[in-house]
Amino acid sequence: RKLKSLSNLLSDWMFLGLLGINVAVLSIVVDMLVYSLQLLQETIESICINCGQESYLQWTAGMLAWCSYTTVLVVLSAGFVNYVGPRAIGSGIPEMKTIIRGVVLIDYLTLRTLISKVVGISLALGSGIPIGKMGPFVHIASVVANQMCILASKFDVAYKEESRRMECLAAACAVGVACTFSAPVGGVLFAIEVTTMYFSVRSYWRGFFAACCGATTIRLLRGYLVQTEVTVNAFYQTSFRPDAFSVNEIPLFIILGLLCAGLGSLYTKIYRHLVLFLRNNQYAKHLFQRHWFVYPIFISFIYAFVSFPGGLGTFSTGRIRFGTNLKDFFANCAFLNGSGVTECGHEIYSHWMNRGNILMLLVLFIIVHFIFSIISFTIPVPSGVFLPIFVLGAALGRLYGEIIAIYAAHVFVVNPGVYAVVGAAAFSASVTHTVSVSVMIFEITGQLHFILPVMTSVMLANAVGAFMQSSFFDTIIKIKNLPFLPDIPPSNNLVYTTKAEDIMVAPVKFLCKLSTFHDIQDMIKTEFRVVPVVDSESTQMLIGTVSRKRLIHLMNNQIGDHVRKLEAERRV
Amino acid sequence: RKLKSLSNLLSDWMFLGLLGINVAVLSIVVDMLVYSLQLLQETIESICINCGQESYLQWTAGMLAWCSYTTVLVVLSAGFVNYVGPRAIGSGIPEMKTIIRGVVLIDYLTLRTLISKVVGISLALGSGIPIGKMGPFVHIASVVANQMCILASKFDVAYKEESRRMECLAAACAVGVACTFSAPVGGVLFAIEVTTMYFSVRSYWRGFFAACCGATTIRLLRGYLVQTEVTVNAFYQTSFRPDAFSVNEIPLFIILGLLCAGLGSLYTKIYRHLVLFLRNNQYAKHLFQRHWFVYPIFISFIYAFVSFPGGLGTFSTGRIRFGTNLKDFFANCAFLNGSGVTECGHEIYSHWMNRGNILMLLVLFIIVHFIFSIISFTIPVPSGVFLPIFVLGAALGRLYGEIIAIYAAHVFVVNPGVYAVVGAAAFSASVTHTVSVSVMIFEITGQLHFILPVMTSVMLANAVGAFMQSSFFDTIIKIKNLPFLPDIPPSNNLVYTTKAEDIMVAPVKFLCKLSTFHDIQDMIKTEFRVVPVVDSESTQMLIGTVSRKRLIHLMNNQIGDHVRKLEAERRV
Repeated sequence: RKLKSLSNLLSDWMFLGLLGINVAVLSIVVDMLVYSLQLLQETIESICINCGQESYLQWTAGMLAWCSYTTVLVVLSAGFVNYVGPRAIGSGIPEMKTIIRGVVLIDYLTLRTLISKVVGISLALGSGIPIGKMGPFVHIASVVANQMCILASKFDVAYKEESRRMECLAAACAVGVACTFSAPVGGVLFAIEVTTMYFSVRSYWRGFFAACCGATTIRLLRGYLVQTEVTVNAFYQTSFRPDAFSVNEIPLFIILGLLCAGLGSLYTKIYRHLVLFLRNNQYAKHLFQRHWFVYPIFISFIYAFVSFPGGLGTFSTGRIRFGTNLKDFFANCAFLNGSGVTECGHEIYSHWMNRGNILMLLVLFIIVHFIFSIISFTIPVPSGVFLPIFVLGAALGRLYGEIIAIYAAHVFVVNPGVYAVVGAAAFSASVTHTVSVSVMIFEITGQLHFILPVMTSVMLANAVGAFMQSSFFDTIIKIKNLPFLPDIPPSNNLVYTTKAEDIMVAPVKFLCKLSTFHDIQDMIKTEFRVVPVVDSESTQMLIGTVSRKRLIHLMNNQIGDHVRKLEAERRV
Repeated sequence: RKLKSLSNLLSDWMFLGLLGINVAVLSIVVDMLVYSLQLLQETIESICINCGQESYLQWTAGMLAWCSYTTVLVVLSAGFVNYVGPRAIGSGIPEMKTIIRGVVLIDYLTLRTLISKVVGISLALGSGIPIGKMGPFVHIASVVANQMCILASKFDVAYKEESRRMECLAAACAVGVACTFSAPVGGVLFAIEVTTMYFSVRSYWRGFFAACCGATTIRLLRGYLVQTEVTVNAFYQTSFRPDAFSVNEIPLFIILGLLCAGLGSLYTKIYRHLVLFLRNNQYAKHLFQRHWFVYPIFISFIYAFVSFPGGLGTFSTGRIRFGTNLKDFFANCAFLNGSGVTECGHEIYSHWMNRGNILMLLVLFIIVHFIFSIISFTIPVPSGVFLPIFVLGAALGRLYGEIIAIYAAHVFVVNPGVYAVVGAAAFSASVTHTVSVSVMIFEITGQLHFILPVMTSVMLANAVGAFMQSSFFDTIIKIKNLPFLPDIPPSNNLVYTTKAEDIMVAPVKFLCKLSTFHDIQDMIKTEFRVVPVVDSESTQMLIGTVSRKRLIHLMNNQIGDHVRKLEAERRV
């Protein structure tokens, strides 16, 4: 028996390890697909830039090439997803949340959906629209886990158990997050916060193990495939000194946290209204709902036009890719001179400096990506929301930091990069309503010096955000009308001091043997759907309930028009 | 109502914030007390060293001064705890685990115990015996939370609720850990892993907030009190380069993880046997249980003698304090030349190098502290186990790393400091059975580069450790006979494939109306304590059960010796 227990333990951990490795390999495959698509885009871009503004015709040709590249990829993605597996549309985190809470969503964890999602997300990411890959990878990892469970159940009946499958799915969510950011610890915590309300220490372990296997695989493979020396390294390694910020700056970070909380709520709110508008507005319906490809073409063309590096993109970054901006924002230098921190090097200059006022460029960047990341999320392709809000938050923080660096240079030696890190954490915390994003940012940046400002602003953004708006994922659940178990009431003293008396109807309405038809008629006029029936007015002991519908029916039978007519006929 | 809800929310978070700040202040107070006691010890030490080996009499005097310093402090601590609040003895984590699981331990969360614990731990830490302060601080934070709840319940009835109090206690455990290591994230996770099996995302948030307040307070206060420039910094900041280890070294880390798992199990095992020996052995009872001060004097004198810097301490470190060793172990250099890594500077040399073979010194250090940290934990004073095992693990890892650095220098460029970090994580993980120790080590060292080796060896040490031995805290719970809810069975497939059939007695034994006295006699001879009673042999429908005791009693009444004698007399 001891031996059998050991072999079972081993097979269990092997299953988790394989899950992590499989998802990591898928993640690498998607990354490589996206990378080759990006090379293509860069070729197009270089043509455009070379042809330049010399000839109007050439410029138009370049612009059209750029726009059609984006549009074609988005339409291809939307088409593939539409025909192969429409369940792959969107993030995946809201659906996993409902699945883990016990709802069965048909076709959601099939192989067909997996293929649809992998191809769809590769094409969509390759097109360059501002979307992320975390949500889709949570979904992909869950499908992989589900399929592995089905496969394993042929050898071991244990994997047929529902509870077992749920354990595997919970671990899979962690793997999905960890494989996107190569941040196993934060990944596990984020997956837990996003998908569940309660969890066992056991599934936290299992998630950790699977996520570590995934993260390790990714780092190893990247090391061999991309041929870098540093195989194990943070994604956006920063290099701030331990004294990069002073304690006196804490109030500034608090303001930044509040700002992010407000904008985060606005972000979710605008998204909700946009989706409802597209669904209910007559014109929008007329325009977009005729055929699946109309909306993707429309949106992707506009975004491509706005981000065309030879045109409007000059003002709202388009020359460098969306994710690359993070490196600039987190850079340990100031965009503008005069704050006592070293200025940025040539590489970052070339991205930002040579196109007029840098603060205006940052503002434009934020506005354009605030709007387009929301709109991109309504395109029917697989898409994640985390990376866009993360980058947006970093941009916000950078802008805030740069402004302070200019106007408060005589008070503090401000390092705008630290503000970018804090902004990224606070903004994504306020949109997703998670605390663990702070752990993720430590893993992503590879530095822990700014634990104090990050935690402060994340906690604030969370608390204020939760007060103003439900989280982005919950909003999607509500919009999609997925079966949603509401959260446990907020953890404040109200839960302990509110009495039934405070919310009940008093005096209690009821019916009894002595109730007249008139009483019943009064009761029907109220909004109650069910009415209590008691034995007598004095004792008020509950016998049962009767529904309003049933009451109406009975009354009609007794004194309704038809009955009265019959009675009248009988009397005549 | 919205306003009331807001004010409740604010008061709730204020409560948590205050909890964090209060515990942080207590932690600083204890630190300062310990610091001033250590200054005293250093004075004694300098006298000893100055008097040197010149005169045998002087040496003896110095030695006696040193030993009596340690002994007096330990006895003072034990005496204070014994008279003021004996509940303060030991760690506190096992007790909190049982309390959070719903058991009421009388007098455990009173103000008297708090005073006893604070004074006791200060004296005990000041004496220099190898103990930590994390466990006691978990206890102290819980008492503070409990007292704050009692105080708050005078203004708000909500704080009288049991569930509310438990929420506060869970947050308090997190605060306790966070305030010891100034590691809020790891602290929350460690507290959760150590004290509960299941937890809500909500209490994780609350713990985070309280822990952050505590950690912030500590860092701020330390900045002002200790007058350092760097107010926000990791406790034992390391400075490894990102390429401090190569992927090829992973097998070495796996071996280190297994080694730590084995030694960790041994550690717990020896502790259990030592406690049982002291409790059951005739001689030990005779010697130590006569009066409370005999054992502390005996042990602390021996430890002081062994660690006397002018005597045996030269060979097993005594010149520098226990915690300071961590800095040496984590140092980014090699103790011995020839491995390609830079050698250590003068400061670390002076601690280790000038006393013969450094590897032998490390081995001695490990042996002495392995034994004495276990023994110290049996002294009736408040004491934590985490720091000792952490330091022991670091020493183990350092030794392992140094050996590899010498003998495998031609294969790898080995950095022994990384091995020390990994060893510390793996050893403490295997003793406490937690994964979150890896997060804590990232926060303690302030570096994330070695996430891969740390996670690998921690997972391994955990899995193997859990297979060999129950965790240190669970062992204490068992030894102390605290009401203990056993864990949910291990998460492997056995849970899903084991049938009742596999463990039940078959064929089922039962009694029915037609059972003879002989059947009952057979039944009594079995080891069953309770026997099922069915209606008839054919239908086997369960009617009830009868205990073996009752059966024996009934049989004696019917055909026992006494009855038979009476029957014989009657017939005669």
